[in-house]
Amino acid sequence: MGQQKKALVVFSGGQDSTTCLAWAKKEFSAVETITFDYGQRHKIELESAKKITKIAKVSQEVVKIDLFSKLTANALTDPSITINQGSKDQLPSTFVPGRNLIFLSIAAIYAKQRGIKDIITGVCQTDYSGYPDCRDQFIKSLEQTLNFSMDENFHLHTPLMFLSKKETVEMMQQLGQIELLKHSHTCYNGTRPACGKCPACKLRLKGFKEAGITDPLKYEQ
Amino acid sequence: MGQQKKALVVFSGGQDSTTCLAWAKKEFSAVETITFDYGQRHKIELESAKKITKIAKVSQEVVKIDLFSKLTANALTDPSITINQGSKDQLPSTFVPGRNLIFLSIAAIYAKQRGIKDIITGVCQTDYSGYPDCRDQFIKSLEQTLNFSMDENFHLHTPLMFLSKKETVEMMQQLGQIELLKHSHTCYNGTRPACGKCPACKLRLKGFKEAGITDPLKYEQ
Repeated sequence: MGQQKKALVVFSGGQDSTTCLAWAKKEFSAVETITFDYGQRHKIELESAKKITKIAKVSQEVVKIDLFSKLTANALTDPSITINQGSKDQLPSTFVPGRNLIFLSIAAIYAKQRGIKDIITGVCQTDYSGYPDCRDQFIKSLEQTLNFSMDENFHLHTPLMFLSKKETVEMMQQLGQIELLKHSHTCYNGTRPACGKCPACKLRLKGFKEAGITDPLKYEQ
Repeated sequence: MGQQKKALVVFSGGQDSTTCLAWAKKEFSAVETITFDYGQRHKIELESAKKITKIAKVSQEVVKIDLFSKLTANALTDPSITINQGSKDQLPSTFVPGRNLIFLSIAAIYAKQRGIKDIITGVCQTDYSGYPDCRDQFIKSLEQTLNFSMDENFHLHTPLMFLSKKETVEMMQQLGQIELLKHSHTCYNGTRPACGKCPACKLRLKGFKEAGITDPLKYEQ
């Protein structure tokens, strides 16, 4: 019997991190999760996260941070800003500057205390919606920075990095956990049933459609 | 007339960041500061920081974060832990894991909102007290990570990186600002007058002594 291999999943309660959680449970012998309450408009995501960690029987550390609503202007923490997808010259209004940087840095600090070296995040470059902090070059650079900052040997795992949404759905199917996605949250408008119309809902629905699999999540009408 | 060049100083109110502030005021046409209230044992540092920014006539953004006292065990945020200097195999008990990582990341997020590209920090590798996040390789790696994370062109300035404490004192002398250090705080024990005995006080006193300059700060007896 080898040593127990522990991993920490950065867990939002969305489709991607739920898929990562299922992946981590297969790859590691002990899995914990960390969830960020950062004043997101779609607060319902936090309830999803709590529910899913319960069903998956993994521990959950919830970290509250009010930085983003105080320091930045973005549509995810400020309901007065309209959600748009951005353009060639402009980042989407839902981009929260430095979000993954802060989340993964805090995750690493927490992991260090827990003796965990493997950290899993659901960021994805393929359909990255214009978010620079979802790209592989950012993650690789951050991994090095985290290790320099704490004299550590962290490894950042990004199982979805180069997958399309279709392939992410297929991964979950292969892991036998599609039903877990019934509880995951995606909608930027934070409605339940999901709106089915915002950029996040559209991307999710497209992935399921292309994979030929029915999304267990409930949508409006 | 060229464009106004703005800079943001990560400002603790200690000797090093006060020296950086004086340096920045000479190098840049507009200087702002950001200070972190992170539950430090030496809370008096925050009063020093406020006083110095007033004297230097620069704006100050104070950011409160309770992460470190919640997520990590260290002597700076937990008074029940004894202050020690560490050894070859062990980091000092005053090491707050991820502190500069988080401070500089938040500084960059704030700088982005303020249209600032130049960020100044007083970290120093020379007598780095065993803190991995004061080394040049960490700062270089972080600069790249910050730029990837937000599609930016930040430059992290570290004017003290390769200076001895003696040279830092001499720099302040050359900048004509030694008197400003009267208000700066260094002591880990948070006493005023300063204790003169903790590792931080000792390092400071040694620097002044070697430079042949009188420290304007008051010490016990």
